[in-house]
Amino acid sequence: MSAIVTFGETMLRLSPPRGERLERTRALDAQQGGAESNVAVATARLGAETTWLSKLPDSPLGRRITAELRSHGVDPAVAWDDSADARLGTYYLEHGGDPRGTDVIYDRADASVTTATPDELPTEVLRDADVFYTSGITPALSPTLSDTTAALLRGAREAGARTAFDLNYRSKLWSPDEAGEGYEALFPHVDVLFAAERDVETCLGREGDPIEVANGLLRDYDFETVVLTRGENGSVAVADGEAYEQPVYDADTFDAIGTGDAFVGGYLARRTDGGSIPDALAYAAATASLKRTIDGDLAVVTPAEVEAVIDRDAGGISR
Amino acid sequence: MSAIVTFGETMLRLSPPRGERLERTRALDAQQGGAESNVAVATARLGAETTWLSKLPDSPLGRRITAELRSHGVDPAVAWDDSADARLGTYYLEHGGDPRGTDVIYDRADASVTTATPDELPTEVLRDADVFYTSGITPALSPTLSDTTAALLRGAREAGARTAFDLNYRSKLWSPDEAGEGYEALFPHVDVLFAAERDVETCLGREGDPIEVANGLLRDYDFETVVLTRGENGSVAVADGEAYEQPVYDADTFDAIGTGDAFVGGYLARRTDGGSIPDALAYAAATASLKRTIDGDLAVVTPAEVEAVIDRDAGGISR
Amino acid sequence: MSAIVTFGETMLRLSPPRGERLERTRALDAQQGGAESNVAVATARLGAETTWLSKLPDSPLGRRITAELRSHGVDPAVAWDDSADARLGTYYLEHGGDPRGTDVIYDRADASVTTATPDELPTEVLRDADVFYTSGITPALSPTLSDTTAALLRGAREAGARTAFDLNYRSKLWSPDEAGEGYEALFPHVDVLFAAERDVETCLGREGDPIEVANGLLRDYDFETVVLTRGENGSVAVADGEAYEQPVYDADTFDAIGTGDAFVGGYLARRTDGGSIPDALAYAAATASLKRTIDGDLAVVTPAEVEAVIDRDAGGISR
Amino acid sequence: MSAIVTFGETMLRLSPPRGERLERTRALDAQQGGAESNVAVATARLGAETTWLSKLPDSPLGRRITAELRSHGVDPAVAWDDSADARLGTYYLEHGGDPRGTDVIYDRADASVTTATPDELPTEVLRDADVFYTSGITPALSPTLSDTTAALLRGAREAGARTAFDLNYRSKLWSPDEAGEGYEALFPHVDVLFAAERDVETCLGREGDPIEVANGLLRDYDFETVVLTRGENGSVAVADGEAYEQPVYDADTFDAIGTGDAFVGGYLARRTDGGSIPDALAYAAATASLKRTIDGDLAVVTPAEVEAVIDRDAGGISR
Amino acid sequence: MSAIVTFGETMLRLSPPRGERLERTRALDAQQGGAESNVAVATARLGAETTWLSKLPDSPLGRRITAELRSHGVDPAVAWDDSADARLGTYYLEHGGDPRGTDVIYDRADASVTTATPDELPTEVLRDADVFYTSGITPALSPTLSDTTAALLRGAREAGARTAFDLNYRSKLWSPDEAGEGYEALFPHVDVLFAAERDVETCLGREGDPIEVANGLLRDYDFETVVLTRGENGSVAVADGEAYEQPVYDADTFDAIGTGDAFVGGYLARRTDGGSIPDALAYAAATASLKRTIDGDLAVVTPAEVEAVIDRDAGGISR
Amino acid sequence: MSAIVTFGETMLRLSPPRGERLERTRALDAQQGGAESNVAVATARLGAETTWLSKLPDSPLGRRITAELRSHGVDPAVAWDDSADARLGTYYLEHGGDPRGTDVIYDRADASVTTATPDELPTEVLRDADVFYTSGITPALSPTLSDTTAALLRGAREAGARTAFDLNYRSKLWSPDEAGEGYEALFPHVDVLFAAERDVETCLGREGDPIEVANGLLRDYDFETVVLTRGENGSVAVADGEAYEQPVYDADTFDAIGTGDAFVGGYLARRTDGGSIPDALAYAAATASLKRTIDGDLAVVTPAEVEAVIDRDAGGISR
Repeated sequence: MSAIVTFGETMLRLSPPRGERLERTRALDAQQGGAESNVAVATARLGAETTWLSKLPDSPLGRRITAELRSHGVDPAVAWDDSADARLGTYYLEHGGDPRGTDVIYDRADASVTTATPDELPTEVLRDADVFYTSGITPALSPTLSDTTAALLRGAREAGARTAFDLNYRSKLWSPDEAGEGYEALFPHVDVLFAAERDVETCLGREGDPIEVANGLLRDYDFETVVLTRGENGSVAVADGEAYEQPVYDADTFDAIGTGDAFVGGYLARRTDGGSIPDALAYAAATASLKRTIDGDLAVVTPAEVEAVIDRDAGGISR
Repeated sequence: MSAIVTFGETMLRLSPPRGERLERTRALDAQQGGAESNVAVATARLGAETTWLSKLPDSPLGRRITAELRSHGVDPAVAWDDSADARLGTYYLEHGGDPRGTDVIYDRADASVTTATPDELPTEVLRDADVFYTSGITPALSPTLSDTTAALLRGAREAGARTAFDLNYRSKLWSPDEAGEGYEALFPHVDVLFAAERDVETCLGREGDPIEVANGLLRDYDFETVVLTRGENGSVAVADGEAYEQPVYDADTFDAIGTGDAFVGGYLARRTDGGSIPDALAYAAATASLKRTIDGDLAVVTPAEVEAVIDRDAGGISR
Repeated sequence: MSAIVTFGETMLRLSPPRGERLERTRALDAQQGGAESNVAVATARLGAETTWLSKLPDSPLGRRITAELRSHGVDPAVAWDDSADARLGTYYLEHGGDPRGTDVIYDRADASVTTATPDELPTEVLRDADVFYTSGITPALSPTLSDTTAALLRGAREAGARTAFDLNYRSKLWSPDEAGEGYEALFPHVDVLFAAERDVETCLGREGDPIEVANGLLRDYDFETVVLTRGENGSVAVADGEAYEQPVYDADTFDAIGTGDAFVGGYLARRTDGGSIPDALAYAAATASLKRTIDGDLAVVTPAEVEAVIDRDAGGISR
Repeated sequence: MSAIVTFGETMLRLSPPRGERLERTRALDAQQGGAESNVAVATARLGAETTWLSKLPDSPLGRRITAELRSHGVDPAVAWDDSADARLGTYYLEHGGDPRGTDVIYDRADASVTTATPDELPTEVLRDADVFYTSGITPALSPTLSDTTAALLRGAREAGARTAFDLNYRSKLWSPDEAGEGYEALFPHVDVLFAAERDVETCLGREGDPIEVANGLLRDYDFETVVLTRGENGSVAVADGEAYEQPVYDADTFDAIGTGDAFVGGYLARRTDGGSIPDALAYAAATASLKRTIDGDLAVVTPAEVEAVIDRDAGGISR
Repeated sequence: MSAIVTFGETMLRLSPPRGERLERTRALDAQQGGAESNVAVATARLGAETTWLSKLPDSPLGRRITAELRSHGVDPAVAWDDSADARLGTYYLEHGGDPRGTDVIYDRADASVTTATPDELPTEVLRDADVFYTSGITPALSPTLSDTTAALLRGAREAGARTAFDLNYRSKLWSPDEAGEGYEALFPHVDVLFAAERDVETCLGREGDPIEVANGLLRDYDFETVVLTRGENGSVAVADGEAYEQPVYDADTFDAIGTGDAFVGGYLARRTDGGSIPDALAYAAATASLKRTIDGDLAVVTPAEVEAVIDRDAGGISR
Repeated sequence: MSAIVTFGETMLRLSPPRGERLERTRALDAQQGGAESNVAVATARLGAETTWLSKLPDSPLGRRITAELRSHGVDPAVAWDDSADARLGTYYLEHGGDPRGTDVIYDRADASVTTATPDELPTEVLRDADVFYTSGITPALSPTLSDTTAALLRGAREAGARTAFDLNYRSKLWSPDEAGEGYEALFPHVDVLFAAERDVETCLGREGDPIEVANGLLRDYDFETVVLTRGENGSVAVADGEAYEQPVYDADTFDAIGTGDAFVGGYLARRTDGGSIPDALAYAAATASLKRTIDGDLAVVTPAEVEAVIDRDAGGISR
């Protein structure tokens, strides 16, 4: 009976202290990350009843994922994998300033989630969902997950939910062509598309004026809504023949990871709560800007904080 | 026989690591803060014999306040509260970049200091003081402290000390009107006024050219000196018909809390040591700029460091 | 629709690193503790649907309590206090070996929970509860809470729940006589009594053979069950004319705080799940022994771990 | 041209702080462990030219293994795996006192080493080796490694090295029967056998008087030397018709992991350096006892420290 | 005008975390240690007006010594060394259980204090002292300090103070013969001798019944009082023809360093406060036992804690 | 048989956490630094066989230096000092933003290295070296080292190596005049000179157009190559009548210490590997820019990372 259900992989996230290198550090900060649970944390914290659907190893490592999600108010609906080779995907994140950049090492092959089938997942949570969300990472993780993703999108829609999908292209998982093909196989089951302008260009070969690109996608794939994120250039959304633009809110970036998921979470939470598209875009941008100031993948924010960002911008009130 | 005596509350200060949130952190950094002891630490470190007068719970938490102050050379003159409900005020500080901002949660109600009366305080330390300092936070903490603040200001002056007062408006303690009234009740006992331009506008309804504002205060309340701090715009002082201006020294801000107190401490230390008002303003601005680079409320600096800031600025010597 | 509902105060728990003293430490480990939420964490982790009922400040500090409880599967039912002086009780815990001992400093006066009334609490959670649990700490916190505790015990029973109560005498909250009187006022509403042998002697003046003491309490106050904990000497329970004894399981104690609550949680979880009294006592003793190896108030254990302790003891299987 | 060459898997080792649980911790201490590199660290630190032969992912995680080994004077001879799915095995270690015990979670499936073949490994390091060492963990990791282990043992012997093998039974990798069969397939290529008494009983079905058991193994499988470790009961060795006994040195155990490898390392280092079997047993026992006081898998010790343990015991010299 | 003045070297103390080795650690805990300042901290904390006399580099490292001492209430009387090669002695401390033991590496050669002469030291603090204390470490540090120690002992006595001296033999500083000779040169200026039984045997060649040994020293060197510490066997004191014995209080030892200084501090504080010799021995033993539970050289204790240890023992009151 | 041999002092480097002051911190991060070993780490990590030649105390502190160097692939060739007063130089580093600046306190007097003579050093490592490198810090440390530096430069050249030297002026070791004289005594034995523009001006009195300055040095002292580093203004090199310029790569500076050594290391590694001077300058600048993002003196980088910086700049590829 959750308003929002998300489906995908969540990994253990391990990071050395700032300035230290993975090759030498003794200290790893253990958090977690995964596009769809990141979105779920944002929507739950912003007030939407939220369920995260996935498969996890039946171990302390699996339990720490659900414990953390529950702490943010997300309801985990999990198929527990008690097989001998059950494993939790892991990713190593080394923050580095320019010119070193931030380095991500994935160790996610054969994670328990890659074998998840609709039969074993507690899909009854889809029954009364308003929105079902997943991202382009999920189908890329395994052929099984590709099938499962399609089945869940289909099932969610049949159950009456609106479906939302973020391209989230990951070059370490598949090539642009494979991704493009994979996306297009799912698009018929998608109502709301989130996409980074860069991914649209890389995988779908579309570039140019963002509103035209968005409208092209909407028209060609028959989406209800298309939201294009454009990094420092803000975001645009098109729907019902209207187009909306939203600039970013300035932020002192402490940790950029999870910003896109915070954006999606802010948008979905506001829309599910009855907000208009422009309202949802502002909510999305404000949630994303707050996320940047926080260590970790998760948008550990409150509705009051999100609204303060929006109001300050609108009304110029200083603290 | 201290040159400077300050009076006020000191709290335990608890902060999560950078990027972490109070809601979730396991690690709190424990320091301390309080406008008047912050000033005392600055003046003591900069060479002035300094006493801090207050009331504390007779507990490890109370003793950690005096231990820390003594380590900086401040002499604590304390009424120890051994009642069952003796408590130390606490404040939680969460550093956040834009747009999240820095969040402060006070838990200071019914702290031992709020019941301090002149009778129980070791007021003999006022006897040979050159300067007695307190701030507008102290009278706002309780009606008892309001009375005690007035009594101490009066007593200090009678004992031959010059009295100094910083408005330090705290909206969580009283309204602008209450504060304005409270300040005006104390002004007859004050010789040197420190005030943030913003507080003067909020609580006393005066704004405009800073030197005119300062002169207006000096004239209307018969102060000896008025020092107005103006954030990034520097500071001004008026006294004896003269006006002085002091720009800020650029600083990489690590922790902005305590900057104003470092300013006051730098000023008082230099004046007590025989410096002119412009000398004292430069000392104040340099101490404040160094404070910004240091974690915690306290200006853990040396006279040599303060002078290096001033000289570098004056003479353009690079490191 | 929870099997178990507990009611009481939860505090922020702050501890210095081992070997360090509160008076001097810079590092405080932030966890949480409270008899009734400690019990709730144990019962939830051991499989019982559990709700914790209380009142908290509407702040990051209040939210961290519910976030932590949810992470263990407890459902918090909370009256949020958004008044200006809302506060979370705090306790400082300094671990020390012999002869220094472990030092606890409470700073819990005027916590939000002390004003909790039945009207404002979400008492609908009592409707379908199997067990309602609180401890002797709760009525000692304020006259309001004393009334509320009585009302909730009464209400729970009326709603069909069995009521359970642990004396949990705290000498810093009331005298033995006050406590004894307070307990006796509540006993008419209690079905299952947990009591430390020491508290029974101190507050109720009963000592001697533990089974006779337990039977005396059962008979005189008309309890359904009395469970007496006897430190290193294990525990006894009496009910329905039967008496049961349970030795302790040996443990390397890392942190003894919360052991008693783990015992109660283990007992209630097993009983609610249909276990016999001897089963429940074994479960209780095993949960308590595991708790001793874990830092913090909470019994972060799994049913499998508890059962392994019991089985190993029964069958002598070594690892 | 190394005196000692060891071959096997090395994993990243991740542990929460003492008293904390994997399910909840934010802080993981990152070290490394692997029976054969543990042995290599001990032999290198105790003065033997030592090479560790293995396969690792070409990544910061792989490089941290070789960096750490080199820091102890081990020369890593590594086949670098630059395939997309190259991975480093990981193990999670949660220290717990009784009755919780120490918990180990392996995440080592499909580690790069599991595909290592003699062709790709830099086996030229075997050419001038005095001793080649591996353990029963290695052949259990994959069929490929089982073949490779046999080939390397054979090749080492052909190249003139003495071969040494430790049963090191791991029930999470294979059953006792599989292990017994696997061991017996390798025994024809082994000169020196190390075995825990417990493993001999579990996998080879031999028990009884330890010297008789050792002699039985020596006779039946035609070993040159058999060393049996017996936990708190010390160790025995048989060779050339002689039997030797060595008690353990008392130790305050901080971390028991790696104790057996330290024993083997001490033995091999001393033998390679010309020591007699009793000398080597004493060295082994002393190295193992020192290891127990040190956090991590590795025996970070010096020859002087090992000798001090032996001398103190022999001569009763106190510090 | 201090009751107690101590004179000696204080070093920076650097320790790796428990279980880690100096050779590999990244984290060093920075505290401080020095027999005479350790004693001063104990006496100051236990209520005696205390001054510590020494010479320090005029640097942040020197200032941290005085800051820490002041935090415990000790008044530092320091000759500040602003020469280019001024340095603070350092010692590295690695805690290790058996059989590794605790390792201490001194890096104290040419520390500023080694050049301290009576002329440059602020010896006016001796004027009204009741007790002057130093230990056998000080004269061993340099020929200059040997002269200075003798001069200060003489001067203190002339100024009316009682002089106290602890052998504190350090084999890394001088041989037993050198030490014995050094001690005997100072004994004519000493009133109260503290000595470990072991040091008396090693350096002065006296052994046997402790009371006889103590009386022999008292008689032969004409001391007023001799206090012999005997490790686990407690302590004895002789004076005025009387002999007193004091057992140790059991303690869970977290850090044994500084225990002897805590003993001396407890003794001197109680004697200076008018306590009898048996009182002072009990105070000494209790302070020493508390010190053992605390990380670092310093006895961070309160009079109430010391008295609680004594009372508990005397009256058998449990907590 | 190393391509590159460097000679000089390596110190223990101790730093407080960011924002904390040496005067007050409890936590020191222990790393290491020394111009010549910093260079060696860079060249070894970038692929050159590298040996570091020096003298160290035979202690855990000495061993941690070689362990760390070996971990980066540097081969330490060390004269071990087992004298009683053997010591490792130490330096304290306090990072501070403007206007506080970064403070360095050296405690390096009488370090073991200061007594190193060619006779005791394992100079056979010079035999097949391509390049021998040292810096102007080494001869300034002691008269002995001044002689040894000259002897080694001479010996390296005689053995067929190219010699490289970086001025590295340190005002705390000698005056500009002493340094200038010291440099000029060594210049006849130097082939490749690295120099900061600022040091050339300060110690050699040459300023003006950087290429003219470089050519003047080359001509007057008969160098083969002169490389001038100019801070934010990049670097220039002159050789064989050609001049080359290299801008800096932008970097987010986390720790500037060691940047110059990373530059030299990048240059030497690339030249030794057959790169042209412009190639080497680019490599140098890229290595230096990466170093700035990393905590500590050492350039913990890989060739791939260095090349990515160069390529990105050349080809404008964004990540």
